[in-house]
Amino acid sequence: MKNSLTQRTINRLTQYHTILRDYAKKDVENITSSQISLLLKIDETQVRKDVKSINCKGKCKVGYNVLELKNIIEEVLDYKVKKRAFVIGAGNLGIALSKYSKFSEFGLEIIGLFDVDKNKIGQKIDGKDIFDLKTLGDKIKESGVEIAILTTPNKVAQEVASYITQCGIKYIWNFAPTILSVDDSVKVWHENLIGSFLQFCAISVK
Amino acid sequence: MKNSLTQRTINRLTQYHTILRDYAKKDVENITSSQISLLLKIDETQVRKDVKSINCKGKCKVGYNVLELKNIIEEVLDYKVKKRAFVIGAGNLGIALSKYSKFSEFGLEIIGLFDVDKNKIGQKIDGKDIFDLKTLGDKIKESGVEIAILTTPNKVAQEVASYITQCGIKYIWNFAPTILSVDDSVKVWHENLIGSFLQFCAISVK
Repeated sequence: MKNSLTQRTINRLTQYHTILRDYAKKDVENITSSQISLLLKIDETQVRKDVKSINCKGKCKVGYNVLELKNIIEEVLDYKVKKRAFVIGAGNLGIALSKYSKFSEFGLEIIGLFDVDKNKIGQKIDGKDIFDLKTLGDKIKESGVEIAILTTPNKVAQEVASYITQCGIKYIWNFAPTILSVDDSVKVWHENLIGSFLQFCAISVK
Repeated sequence: MKNSLTQRTINRLTQYHTILRDYAKKDVENITSSQISLLLKIDETQVRKDVKSINCKGKCKVGYNVLELKNIIEEVLDYKVKKRAFVIGAGNLGIALSKYSKFSEFGLEIIGLFDVDKNKIGQKIDGKDIFDLKTLGDKIKESGVEIAILTTPNKVAQEVASYITQCGIKYIWNFAPTILSVDDSVKVWHENLIGSFLQFCAISVK
């Protein structure tokens, strides 16, 4: 199912989910497409189309059941499938991502950070250890973790990417603004804050 | 032009640009769609289609001129239009974004950070001052900045959003995982690291 959804639809569904979570906390039973569209400043027909595309049905004049729609989104987007990852690079971005509470809520569990800086190794971030990057191979064997979130400085990103894939990392979520060259068996998602920002500019800045 | 491009196309164009920048630095004159597609592990016809959509023409067996394609992408995506912004919240994420070198390269200039923490106010991040959030209104009047990058903790994001729009902020790039309710005249781009991550999972994790 998820594979058939576009990135923009997935983005909107996660935003609906954020609203539904807030409504659920306040014990609100139903929500209308109009309420969602007003909060997100998007077209109401878009909301209806998205919700219909994941097979959730609303009732006329009542709207959608908050918990039902929330659960369907969680199932469609695999929120409940645990995805364990290491953060490579305990700089500001690596630390920020390790503390980002919403990740764990949605199935992503960061179970440790790695760095080469002796002043950082041994410290803890939100209860997660910062390990010596040299020990990554052993930690992968112990834990079975195959996902790395790469947040190193740009100039060492390629070297580190080659190293961590040799250690056994199979999936890289790359925050360094460079295109990584890795073995064909390794999957890379190039995070693109610039792309997102340019999209924002398209709607905003003259 | 940019408004007619999809978010995924914009994302790919920024990735092509990253490659082109590297090639330009190495004084390589031409690049083929095949070379780009191999580096990004995407379909070659997709690359050709994207490049054609921005009216850049390649030569048979030679490929695209690196500088020409790079310039066209920069024009299409308004890289050269200066976009000045304040970062609201000098935590790890705010600091990471303030240091993110690629932003300035692409037209985004972060000219200061704001926080309420007295221990942070007065410090500098990469030459940028951390100001007292109380002074935001004055700083907006002095500078004319209308874009805010919001990186506060989630629980105060709404309160801060209301305050900064009262001060004169017109565009918010929101990194807090919450949906902000603001005046209709204010534009908000909800950054969605979760959406991006789920997209990554769709291609990777079983």
